[in-house]
Amino acid sequence: MQKLAFIGFGVVGQGLAEILIKKKDELKSKYGFDYSVVAVSDFKLGSALDNNGLDLGKVLELSADGKISEYPGATTGLDALETIKQSDADTVIEVSYTDIKTGEPANSHFRAALEGGKHLITTNKGPTALFFKELAALADSKGVQFRYEGTVVAGTPVLNLGEFTLAGNEITEIRGILNGTTNFILTNMEAGRAYDEVLKEAQELGFAEADPTADVEGFDALAKVVILAKSVMGADISPEDVDRTGITQISLEDIEAAKADGKRWKLIGKVTRDGSGVKASVKPEKVALTEPLAAVGGATNALTFVTDLLGEVTIVGPGAGKIETGYSQHAVPS
Amino acid sequence: MQKLAFIGFGVVGQGLAEILIKKKDELKSKYGFDYSVVAVSDFKLGSALDNNGLDLGKVLELSADGKISEYPGATTGLDALETIKQSDADTVIEVSYTDIKTGEPANSHFRAALEGGKHLITTNKGPTALFFKELAALADSKGVQFRYEGTVVAGTPVLNLGEFTLAGNEITEIRGILNGTTNFILTNMEAGRAYDEVLKEAQELGFAEADPTADVEGFDALAKVVILAKSVMGADISPEDVDRTGITQISLEDIEAAKADGKRWKLIGKVTRDGSGVKASVKPEKVALTEPLAAVGGATNALTFVTDLLGEVTIVGPGAGKIETGYSQHAVPS
Repeated sequence: MQKLAFIGFGVVGQGLAEILIKKKDELKSKYGFDYSVVAVSDFKLGSALDNNGLDLGKVLELSADGKISEYPGATTGLDALETIKQSDADTVIEVSYTDIKTGEPANSHFRAALEGGKHLITTNKGPTALFFKELAALADSKGVQFRYEGTVVAGTPVLNLGEFTLAGNEITEIRGILNGTTNFILTNMEAGRAYDEVLKEAQELGFAEADPTADVEGFDALAKVVILAKSVMGADISPEDVDRTGITQISLEDIEAAKADGKRWKLIGKVTRDGSGVKASVKPEKVALTEPLAAVGGATNALTFVTDLLGEVTIVGPGAGKIETGYSQHAVPS
Repeated sequence: MQKLAFIGFGVVGQGLAEILIKKKDELKSKYGFDYSVVAVSDFKLGSALDNNGLDLGKVLELSADGKISEYPGATTGLDALETIKQSDADTVIEVSYTDIKTGEPANSHFRAALEGGKHLITTNKGPTALFFKELAALADSKGVQFRYEGTVVAGTPVLNLGEFTLAGNEITEIRGILNGTTNFILTNMEAGRAYDEVLKEAQELGFAEADPTADVEGFDALAKVVILAKSVMGADISPEDVDRTGITQISLEDIEAAKADGKRWKLIGKVTRDGSGVKASVKPEKVALTEPLAAVGGATNALTFVTDLLGEVTIVGPGAGKIETGYSQHAVPS
């Protein structure tokens, strides 16, 4: 029986909770995975801890009204750090919000979990991009797992593909479409619609933020590039090392010119091996229509691995979504 | 130290041997995998067995002239079955030729290996498609692994993706481009070239057989569909249950008509869950240009998994090639 603690219980946490409830029997019979949720702590929705186990359905119900702290009989009102410390959890699921600049407060949650000998599973890009090496070393020294599949392309298993499924290959380049919002904008601009109009639609659909800077200026994709560089390619780079340009300078004329050339603009995140180091960038590139990445439209994401044995292998899948990202917290083969 | 025996030493066997030699140190340091090749048996190139280990480079050298049986100091001249029986191998690598109708003689090799308590790794579609269930049960009962990644889309890790990396998902449909020769023909016909002319080029390039029936009539893709149905979807079907049509009836006019419609003809292999069973087919389908499969050109292969949690996840990669297929024999995460 794995004891789980949720730190953060927003869209992703709730998506995972729904999967865990729906698939409880299957996870047990098919994979031998049985769980009990002992704590849930969300800074907006409240917190509850009971080391004998909480009813996850009840937590979901209470969370709808922001009243997790009213869970009957549980220890309530603990903040994230106290929740991690006081819980008996074997595994902490850190799905609170990402701060790409400092990584806090998630970074402190990560360290408290690992220091406490708890496995850590996360979708949180900030601390993973900034402190990957230290976190991986800390997890190693404590004999626990640090898993972060959901930080890049949601639940589409790109990191597992790079680490396990392509094992034995030398990966010389990774390039891909790592941000759904910008791909949605570029895809719609190809139909002749103006940038501002499409951005507004993306905001109304709820997948672009009111302040779209992180997406359209490439900061979101940049964090993912750093994670790929560090985790899959073992490189020692920091966010400042990534050559970054957003999509705001792409005009309808640029798009038409590319089309006439048999190409299509995509915001491409890329890490290329370069001697003992790597070169990394996020910038708009004209991709030939014959490349798999060119065919990836809308909010879908995709990643091409360039390998020594297989040549190019591309995986295409959802880059966002409640259930799609919740799924990224699944156990890895190990 | 894993002791390996090669049954079959053609293009795929030699491709794997080259990888094993080139990556010997890396496989040991990075994955803890150390090996010794104790036997190689090929019905055309000869055979050699030494349970103290053969020099794999020397075997490759001798194989170039079809003189493996001249390996100094080894037991030579054994056929495949005797090689399996007399070797101390922990793992048999079965990469002899495929007979899709009877599965022989590979099927007998498979059974001798598994009965003897040896792991079995193979690219051999015939027996895998025909006898998957019995082979998997036999391997289970002997406590050994039966691994067959290379039977579908060469070394592109489609089966590992379905079995491990997408674990937790219910897979409701798998559809894809499973035959490189037919995709090469269709891609070139889109440029206005006639079927016969492109087929001839594919034959000259060495990736279509003199008798192209297995490719162009869909039998090769059919065997892969059966393997996917049995292994990833756990279905109980036989080759006769697959609705099969080849590409020979597709005309340049059909291709133009599809183009005008925003679509593209592809030979699609498909397995769809249907109640407690599955429906399976191999036939030309018009794929919308917005689908990832439409963008897969030339001899490349691709597979889309339709899942309950992630929606559609597509993997695109090489479907043939000496090193690309040799790689499929890599160890799996388990």
